[in-house]
Amino acid sequence: MPADAYLDRLIDLALDEDLSAAGDVTTDALIDPKAQGRAELWAKEEMVLSGLLAFARVFERFDPSVEVTLDDEDGEWMLRKRRVARLFGPLRSLLICERTALNIVQRTSGIATMAARAAEAVKGTKLKVLDTRKTAPGMRALSKLAVRHGGAWNHRFGLFDGVLIKDNHIAAVGGSVTEALKRAHAHCPRLTKIEVEITRLEQLEEAIEGGAHVVLLDNMNDAQIAQAVKKGRGRVELEVSGGVTLERLPALAKLGVDYVSLGALTHSARAMDLSLEILGPKSSK
Amino acid sequence: MPADAYLDRLIDLALDEDLSAAGDVTTDALIDPKAQGRAELWAKEEMVLSGLLAFARVFERFDPSVEVTLDDEDGEWMLRKRRVARLFGPLRSLLICERTALNIVQRTSGIATMAARAAEAVKGTKLKVLDTRKTAPGMRALSKLAVRHGGAWNHRFGLFDGVLIKDNHIAAVGGSVTEALKRAHAHCPRLTKIEVEITRLEQLEEAIEGGAHVVLLDNMNDAQIAQAVKKGRGRVELEVSGGVTLERLPALAKLGVDYVSLGALTHSARAMDLSLEILGPKSSK
Amino acid sequence: MPADAYLDRLIDLALDEDLSAAGDVTTDALIDPKAQGRAELWAKEEMVLSGLLAFARVFERFDPSVEVTLDDEDGEWMLRKRRVARLFGPLRSLLICERTALNIVQRTSGIATMAARAAEAVKGTKLKVLDTRKTAPGMRALSKLAVRHGGAWNHRFGLFDGVLIKDNHIAAVGGSVTEALKRAHAHCPRLTKIEVEITRLEQLEEAIEGGAHVVLLDNMNDAQIAQAVKKGRGRVELEVSGGVTLERLPALAKLGVDYVSLGALTHSARAMDLSLEILGPKSSK
Amino acid sequence: MPADAYLDRLIDLALDEDLSAAGDVTTDALIDPKAQGRAELWAKEEMVLSGLLAFARVFERFDPSVEVTLDDEDGEWMLRKRRVARLFGPLRSLLICERTALNIVQRTSGIATMAARAAEAVKGTKLKVLDTRKTAPGMRALSKLAVRHGGAWNHRFGLFDGVLIKDNHIAAVGGSVTEALKRAHAHCPRLTKIEVEITRLEQLEEAIEGGAHVVLLDNMNDAQIAQAVKKGRGRVELEVSGGVTLERLPALAKLGVDYVSLGALTHSARAMDLSLEILGPKSSK
Amino acid sequence: MPADAYLDRLIDLALDEDLSAAGDVTTDALIDPKAQGRAELWAKEEMVLSGLLAFARVFERFDPSVEVTLDDEDGEWMLRKRRVARLFGPLRSLLICERTALNIVQRTSGIATMAARAAEAVKGTKLKVLDTRKTAPGMRALSKLAVRHGGAWNHRFGLFDGVLIKDNHIAAVGGSVTEALKRAHAHCPRLTKIEVEITRLEQLEEAIEGGAHVVLLDNMNDAQIAQAVKKGRGRVELEVSGGVTLERLPALAKLGVDYVSLGALTHSARAMDLSLEILGPKSSK
Amino acid sequence: MPADAYLDRLIDLALDEDLSAAGDVTTDALIDPKAQGRAELWAKEEMVLSGLLAFARVFERFDPSVEVTLDDEDGEWMLRKRRVARLFGPLRSLLICERTALNIVQRTSGIATMAARAAEAVKGTKLKVLDTRKTAPGMRALSKLAVRHGGAWNHRFGLFDGVLIKDNHIAAVGGSVTEALKRAHAHCPRLTKIEVEITRLEQLEEAIEGGAHVVLLDNMNDAQIAQAVKKGRGRVELEVSGGVTLERLPALAKLGVDYVSLGALTHSARAMDLSLEILGPKSSK
Repeated sequence: MPADAYLDRLIDLALDEDLSAAGDVTTDALIDPKAQGRAELWAKEEMVLSGLLAFARVFERFDPSVEVTLDDEDGEWMLRKRRVARLFGPLRSLLICERTALNIVQRTSGIATMAARAAEAVKGTKLKVLDTRKTAPGMRALSKLAVRHGGAWNHRFGLFDGVLIKDNHIAAVGGSVTEALKRAHAHCPRLTKIEVEITRLEQLEEAIEGGAHVVLLDNMNDAQIAQAVKKGRGRVELEVSGGVTLERLPALAKLGVDYVSLGALTHSARAMDLSLEILGPKSSK
Repeated sequence: MPADAYLDRLIDLALDEDLSAAGDVTTDALIDPKAQGRAELWAKEEMVLSGLLAFARVFERFDPSVEVTLDDEDGEWMLRKRRVARLFGPLRSLLICERTALNIVQRTSGIATMAARAAEAVKGTKLKVLDTRKTAPGMRALSKLAVRHGGAWNHRFGLFDGVLIKDNHIAAVGGSVTEALKRAHAHCPRLTKIEVEITRLEQLEEAIEGGAHVVLLDNMNDAQIAQAVKKGRGRVELEVSGGVTLERLPALAKLGVDYVSLGALTHSARAMDLSLEILGPKSSK
Repeated sequence: MPADAYLDRLIDLALDEDLSAAGDVTTDALIDPKAQGRAELWAKEEMVLSGLLAFARVFERFDPSVEVTLDDEDGEWMLRKRRVARLFGPLRSLLICERTALNIVQRTSGIATMAARAAEAVKGTKLKVLDTRKTAPGMRALSKLAVRHGGAWNHRFGLFDGVLIKDNHIAAVGGSVTEALKRAHAHCPRLTKIEVEITRLEQLEEAIEGGAHVVLLDNMNDAQIAQAVKKGRGRVELEVSGGVTLERLPALAKLGVDYVSLGALTHSARAMDLSLEILGPKSSK
Repeated sequence: MPADAYLDRLIDLALDEDLSAAGDVTTDALIDPKAQGRAELWAKEEMVLSGLLAFARVFERFDPSVEVTLDDEDGEWMLRKRRVARLFGPLRSLLICERTALNIVQRTSGIATMAARAAEAVKGTKLKVLDTRKTAPGMRALSKLAVRHGGAWNHRFGLFDGVLIKDNHIAAVGGSVTEALKRAHAHCPRLTKIEVEITRLEQLEEAIEGGAHVVLLDNMNDAQIAQAVKKGRGRVELEVSGGVTLERLPALAKLGVDYVSLGALTHSARAMDLSLEILGPKSSK
Repeated sequence: MPADAYLDRLIDLALDEDLSAAGDVTTDALIDPKAQGRAELWAKEEMVLSGLLAFARVFERFDPSVEVTLDDEDGEWMLRKRRVARLFGPLRSLLICERTALNIVQRTSGIATMAARAAEAVKGTKLKVLDTRKTAPGMRALSKLAVRHGGAWNHRFGLFDGVLIKDNHIAAVGGSVTEALKRAHAHCPRLTKIEVEITRLEQLEEAIEGGAHVVLLDNMNDAQIAQAVKKGRGRVELEVSGGVTLERLPALAKLGVDYVSLGALTHSARAMDLSLEILGPKSSK
Repeated sequence: MPADAYLDRLIDLALDEDLSAAGDVTTDALIDPKAQGRAELWAKEEMVLSGLLAFARVFERFDPSVEVTLDDEDGEWMLRKRRVARLFGPLRSLLICERTALNIVQRTSGIATMAARAAEAVKGTKLKVLDTRKTAPGMRALSKLAVRHGGAWNHRFGLFDGVLIKDNHIAAVGGSVTEALKRAHAHCPRLTKIEVEITRLEQLEEAIEGGAHVVLLDNMNDAQIAQAVKKGRGRVELEVSGGVTLERLPALAKLGVDYVSLGALTHSARAMDLSLEILGPKSSK
């Protein structure tokens, strides 16, 4: 697996906070440093799995001699109680990394599963469900990947790969959407799109004229959204955001907007039930 | 605020993944580097707040010239819609740090709020609700603190500050609880307690005789727990774990165990609704 | 100045390689640790200045007690021999940081000056001169900023904020521009544009049909470029690259392409002559 | 290849600024993670090659499974259009590291080539061409090595491995060369030489008497230099610096000084033309 | 060997301070990069060896191609002049790492040897000799391990894995041992013991009543200690500290205290004589 | 105090190993975060103090609000029981940093004191006592500084700022001192001296002829040293090393060598007795 500097920083931080300089006192006291062990990762409820490579990386990062074999791939619906990976290596390393690796894969699978339910809700329509930047600190890339594994789509990754002009930015240039767009066009790299958030329908025409690629309709009701679609369709892409639940998705799809973004995908998904069965110092026969 | 190396590593990681070397293209294009701004952090639903110092640290770490004033303290129940902090500083810095800071305080307040509900459920009894090591990577200390803010208690912090002998460890020394405890006593630092997990009641006496300070009853039913309490009370502390819900807490309290640990406190709490109101480049009158 | 993690990593690396754990043996031997000094940064030839904030950051990073006052701003044409900044602080710190700070500002000003000459060559036309990713390691952001200071434009910042499909990518999906664009559209974040490099004119129509936002004409002659412009104008943005010199820019502007990218801006600009005049342990009267 | 902490920091910084946490969106969208590829590094103009090991290290650092075979060695004059290295490994890794690796080897080869031209100009004389500390940030060691590859010589590496007393240092001890040398001798480690810069010929005798190992003649004309040589030869080593061009080198050699230092070697060498030919997902037959 | 983040940070720091970006100039000048060599680590005086894995890790960290074979194990008394490890790998790497690796193993073996002498002095009694936190910066874990190798015991590892209430803490809560213990019990993780330092015998009863697990008798004479033992035995563990020498240990053992802590074990142990015999570029016959 | 990257890495490592992510549980439980305190550093035995700035830096690094006032300077003989510094700041920060700061200053003062005794032993002669690279990992610069504070001298700092050719190097070039020196002269930076270790007197002439600046006489007896001095005086500097004790220094001085190096200065100096008196949450009247 090629280096992923950010993932490694997160793993190092998680292992450090769990181990400190003092290490695992229980394992040090009880487990022979030469004992080898086997372990199996099991998915114990229905889920879309995501984060398997990161799960494996925890062990490999801590101890390159641990071998991880994946039985499944990220992005598929799992049946309840399915083995998804096998590990072999020093028993100490398996025991030490267990919790850190599970903490990651349980979260990312939670996100993928919630994303899959959202994607299911708009299946067959042209509405795309997007994620946001509301991710756990350090888990941006893992969360974005999980969203794709679940079948939803990524909005921009961070502050750097897309312009999103919000009301504060507009206020800061004197309240003019036109001026804000002009400055964005004059500054941003040539392969970056520009999105502008509007809170009043009157701003839509100005946004389109100013060259926005996407317009974000913030906290609008169905009637307002319908009007925006009528005016903007074919001229600009339209995104809806603001307290949207899974239940509202089919209705939004019917209104004809292009995107809807859901913060809950990444900030409030429940951890999935995955566990590691460790098969002691002797090989399992 | 004194240095907290781990928190700073998490904040740096979160800011880096959101900014990259390219920075915030929107803010760079639109906001005058000299513009100052004000902002307010609002709690927008009922919650126990936690993580305010970390919230403030994000801004101070990125830009020491940002001033943060806290109007409330971690650990108190908030009424809906209450202002909890005020910020003043370069508008660019406020806009850039907003999302990263919110991503932290929304999560930690979610944990504190769930911990408070659990603590409420056992109020007036001697049962203490404990957390686990099932925390988001990099958020161990913040999560443990949030648990205390909510009124619940911390189990060990990591693998290093308490011995917890599980079935794998016992198996690794030949299946003997006695031998496992003997080795732990012979190895661990003098101020560390030793807990042993048992899966069968027959192991309880052996654990007590072996000098365990705490015994963990794993996935036992009420009848088994009652028997364990009868035998162990006054001789050892007893902890219950394994799929416990908030609903079961009062019953467990009546059974007379000392501790119950809940993984969901830290792995599945919902993010609380807090938002930052940014008051543009001009001061708010 | 707010934190810039990448710039600080570069400065730390540069100071470390110049100082090591042993420090500046000359200064340690000769300069009283309590001596204060003044210094002035002078531009000693005609140039467009860039990198002043990074220049200042070197001193502030090494010793927060050094005060830097800027007399000029990045991005302006300087007359020969003009003072652009003043410094005051511990004489040791001024002497230690001098070379590292100059090494940065001399390079970035070299890039800005070359960019300004290129921008001058296309003034009054709609052709925009772009940079590339051919930057000194660790100097990506400083180089991109210098390009803007000189009046040229930024192509994508890195591999992450724009899709650029090259012949290798096309070959990897079986040689089909259409397939390559389809996959790119299906995968990339919603605010990212897609550019495709073509080596034969026949590919242009396919690129436009496939939804490319920009088409890169690689190493084409004027006749080929003219044909591409005829076919693509108004339907897609066109970029020319490949061994373009400043002399060819006016001709390219006449051909009507939108962009031309110049690697030499960032990989071969000459260092500008700037020097630091240090005014000893006594103040200059 | 043994660890080189500084090189790895530079490579990590360069890869991070090119990839960010978001990674290479084009490659992620288009290239099968399991596809293997071949690539060849070609020198496309006359040059002295330098930096091959650093070029290889970029790939190995990012992905240890990439195999790099060097066909040539640093430090030799290359004919135009010669293959100098071959690579085999995951196609994704080849594509991701290409630009970062080239950015290094193009610069270091530029330095080596310029150093070779300078060394050529003094061939057969005893004059040694030296480099300076005017290197790109983070590239000190690579630049110093390239200078040696080109046949020129290294002055001190940094502030730590040689004493160089400049006018500011002399002023700081009251203007006395004798006092400055006395303090340097009393302080510096026993294997470090001491050089002193003089701006007036009258200081030469004082420098020699004070025990300087090398005297730097700053910005002196030929007549002054000749006088210095007459007085100092055999008693001290003499270095000339200050705006020296390649053209002036033969004349300086005739004057009989020992060293001449050239900042341009490392701050203004043009990048050499090297390119990586990537041979798609199928092996090249 | 699994990762040990703290050890690697210490090794990196030690290699960096010895190498800097400039590297080993002697080895670079004289040793062929392709030359392989052999080396042997010899214990040259009587000692208890400790730190062999860290010794090996220095070489492996710098150059993974170096092979280290251990002939002995930490924790055993060595006869004078015994070979304890063999190394094979690039001669350059052996020469470069030699000093750094020796600097570690000489110190850790010094600690283990002193700990062994202390353990010897109390052999056959129930008194356990403890270490303290008075370790060289960065060497906490290595020092604690060496203490165990010598047969002595670890007090807490750091500030985090045990509560130790000193007079300053007591003063800070108004001078009440009871209040201090109450706060500690209310705050600390459930697997952490609480120790309280007392300076007057009158505080002993209060400490026991307050639930202290261990009481530290600071700078008390034999008579005072005897009284404390009389009162506390069987109710609490008792530790003696403060200027204790090896000579006093047997007397303390007779007094019946449980623990005595010795700062000198880790802050003033003499380095043991170990040396690396390097067997040149040719294999040893 | 200007940044010292290496010192800060050591301090961070020491604080991290003492605190971990869990922090100081005792202080967290007992000390009000708003309580301010005073503290005094006392030297409690005769010593040459060294490391005061590093002592202060520990507190400032952890908590910039701590104010440290130094009452004495490094490098002076202290009377028993003298106050050398005062601190004021958050009581928590004082308690947390106490041990880490003392661990440093006790060691460095131990080195300075031993160096002072060695310097005393050769007072009035021209023999200079040198240190070696046998320093605790991470403490190279602090140890070298302490040696100077004690009045002894520094040999090279690391592998990078001086050439030291040992028998392994000579063997690696075929056993010829002449060849080894030739290669060193051809490679090393122009301000670096070259020392060669000889084990037989016959090698001395060859070393001098080859241009060695210093010759190291390894493990020679007085008669051999006398012969070497007779031959080499005035032509080369001579250093003696190998198991030299303080007692032998006067005899060596009489023999007329220039340098003697003592490993024990930095690897086996005893920690000095310094302690921090913390004056509770109330100000000291």
